[in-house]
Amino acid sequence: MGLIRSWVESANREGCDFPLNNLPCGVFSIDGDDPRCGVAIGDFVLDVAALEAEGLIDLGGPLLDVPFWNEVMEAGPATWAALRSRLTGILAKGSADRAAAEPHLWPLSEARMHMPFLVAEYTDFYAGRNHAFNVGSMFRGPENALPPNWLHIPIGYNGRASSVVVSGTDVRRPWGQLKGADHPAPIFAPSRRFDFELEMGAIVGQASEGMVSVARADEMIFGYVLLNDWSARDVQAWEYQPLGPFQAKATATTISPWIVTRAALEPFRVATPARELPLLPHLTEPGPMLYDIALEVWLTPDGGAETVITRTTYAEMYYSAAQQLCHHTTSGCPMNVGDLLGSGTISGAEKDSRGSMLELSWGGKEPLALVGGVTRSFLEDGDRVVFRGGAQGDGYRIGFGECAGRVIAAHADPVDAGR
Amino acid sequence: MGLIRSWVESANREGCDFPLNNLPCGVFSIDGDDPRCGVAIGDFVLDVAALEAEGLIDLGGPLLDVPFWNEVMEAGPATWAALRSRLTGILAKGSADRAAAEPHLWPLSEARMHMPFLVAEYTDFYAGRNHAFNVGSMFRGPENALPPNWLHIPIGYNGRASSVVVSGTDVRRPWGQLKGADHPAPIFAPSRRFDFELEMGAIVGQASEGMVSVARADEMIFGYVLLNDWSARDVQAWEYQPLGPFQAKATATTISPWIVTRAALEPFRVATPARELPLLPHLTEPGPMLYDIALEVWLTPDGGAETVITRTTYAEMYYSAAQQLCHHTTSGCPMNVGDLLGSGTISGAEKDSRGSMLELSWGGKEPLALVGGVTRSFLEDGDRVVFRGGAQGDGYRIGFGECAGRVIAAHADPVDAGR
Repeated sequence: MGLIRSWVESANREGCDFPLNNLPCGVFSIDGDDPRCGVAIGDFVLDVAALEAEGLIDLGGPLLDVPFWNEVMEAGPATWAALRSRLTGILAKGSADRAAAEPHLWPLSEARMHMPFLVAEYTDFYAGRNHAFNVGSMFRGPENALPPNWLHIPIGYNGRASSVVVSGTDVRRPWGQLKGADHPAPIFAPSRRFDFELEMGAIVGQASEGMVSVARADEMIFGYVLLNDWSARDVQAWEYQPLGPFQAKATATTISPWIVTRAALEPFRVATPARELPLLPHLTEPGPMLYDIALEVWLTPDGGAETVITRTTYAEMYYSAAQQLCHHTTSGCPMNVGDLLGSGTISGAEKDSRGSMLELSWGGKEPLALVGGVTRSFLEDGDRVVFRGGAQGDGYRIGFGECAGRVIAAHADPVDAGR
Repeated sequence: MGLIRSWVESANREGCDFPLNNLPCGVFSIDGDDPRCGVAIGDFVLDVAALEAEGLIDLGGPLLDVPFWNEVMEAGPATWAALRSRLTGILAKGSADRAAAEPHLWPLSEARMHMPFLVAEYTDFYAGRNHAFNVGSMFRGPENALPPNWLHIPIGYNGRASSVVVSGTDVRRPWGQLKGADHPAPIFAPSRRFDFELEMGAIVGQASEGMVSVARADEMIFGYVLLNDWSARDVQAWEYQPLGPFQAKATATTISPWIVTRAALEPFRVATPARELPLLPHLTEPGPMLYDIALEVWLTPDGGAETVITRTTYAEMYYSAAQQLCHHTTSGCPMNVGDLLGSGTISGAEKDSRGSMLELSWGGKEPLALVGGVTRSFLEDGDRVVFRGGAQGDGYRIGFGECAGRVIAAHADPVDAGR
């Protein structure tokens, strides 16, 4: 399938993130008015809440009259398909609906983006083979790098839904307990090793009770976003044994504002890499459930030039989101609409494809050179981190837009200082 | 302060869990009608939603017209105090409101209890000194029992809010990946080491952004429940390194149906035990923030007799909920109304005061003798576990009611079997 042409001409431009093939779901506002559901098309956002209110979209009852996509998700896959089909019809070249729809297009450059959905709960995984090996080598030495369970389970831990923010939100450097190896006791201080993690987020669009198969898990996923799981490495090193990361990961997790639906990504399915050990049957993929999505990380110091510091692909993951979701339910854990699953950090095999500063600077031992002679071991105040990603089709691109955040200075005294 | 006498005579009975001094908050229904907010008094539940609807309670706007206590919590401490004061007035001996209130009393024996609040997120801590030492000894040997950070941080990890259920809900034995030390690879099978954990749950009643002091954290807590953090020990042993417990703790967490407010517990404040190492200043308690609450665990095999297997007290905790909540915000992590904090397993120093089967049977090596010649290493299908707890005042008791759950058999094939 090639590009589906739209009467919104910018959507037909080569390299555009948002052709008619994409139709990602977001929540936007213009000039401080009320946030509402929109779909990106070319250089515009289409106010689908207004289209529903005017009867141009009919999903069998109001689902777009709230500033989040959870109600559409809850309505289920048949509704997802109906909406996609209807929007394709409205926006296709030659559509009879053009005159009715056109007044509801707003320039993306004027739109302020909000969280596209209410996050029910947030789970972060550790499912990138190279990342696990790199980090394991630094924390436990190369011989113990990969934990014994790693090739059998998509290791995950519960994160903090309240800390998930939309692209563009500043991220304040956290305080935390830190302890140097040579110090007898910890101190309480701003993190000195604040980092990003390049991830994809999968959004659960259907609830479940009891365990679900990998096949059903795949069907439960509504779509994907870019995800930055900001991490305080020094806090993590001191706190994470024995019960895992906690405050090191609770400052913020930034997601891109557009949910790219599973339907839009369908042409880009790829299988997970070859298994190094056989998986137990319940975790085996019945078909390709990863996607080949090219990913980039751009780092820009305050007032400086931007540097691409990482290029990799989501196809590097050892486990797909469907496998992760299946594993998540093995205990009978109920899943809900709006649950967010972080893929785990995505690192390629090469140095310039690593998905965190921890790996790029090898724990600070090999500072990274940026454009303009600047170097970085970890993030400094004022640094802006931007993820970009997309899948390249035949004559079109399914893009994610940006997942961006700037690090701002820690509070001088954090106690009761508010955000 | 002694017993406050009520015209509900059963509330004045010695040993009653719900005297007028208590006034715990729950959600109940009668004969399958709609769940609504109620307050326990003696052998009855008072339908406070009806009292508000009739104008007998005025909180400045409807807060009790929903089947959960989150709206009251969100309204803040002044509203909490106003409601308590008004209810004390209505229910006190000689109250002029008796005639208006009495029709809204329902026998507890006829009430079905529901979740008393919407759980925003759930965090579980590991803050009992004896439990940490016991479990650490079994998992890592006595010399490495207490992790280096344990005396500096109330160690916590994020749990799964979707798995929190109210007392009385059956708990299905989970499947999971298990791996024996002598086996080359894991298997997928029902857990063989399913366990309870005796905990208290603190309910966050006020939202925050940024870090909060221990003093402010204490003021944010609305009340407490008994909490059973069901745990699959064999799943936990295989999965928990390096990122902590995940599916081992996601089957269910049971809470008692009555939120006992901080106000009711005020007379029972005690300080945490002496520090073995000084805490950093931000975690130091400005006053006593634990409570002396006697706790018991009762175990009843299917068709068998009940045995008290544990007696201990919440005063055993090394960290208070206020300290835990402060630590939870050090990274800037936002907290929300309805966040639930599990204390961590509460074990005393003696064998018969241990708060889990893992400790009581020392990992299965010393099976526990129950009434009637039955023994237990871990929980078996049909076993009913009941927690009871209360603080003993001068002539009255602030009781929590029961936190009960029965283990039911695992699904024969869990995949897509639903709950």
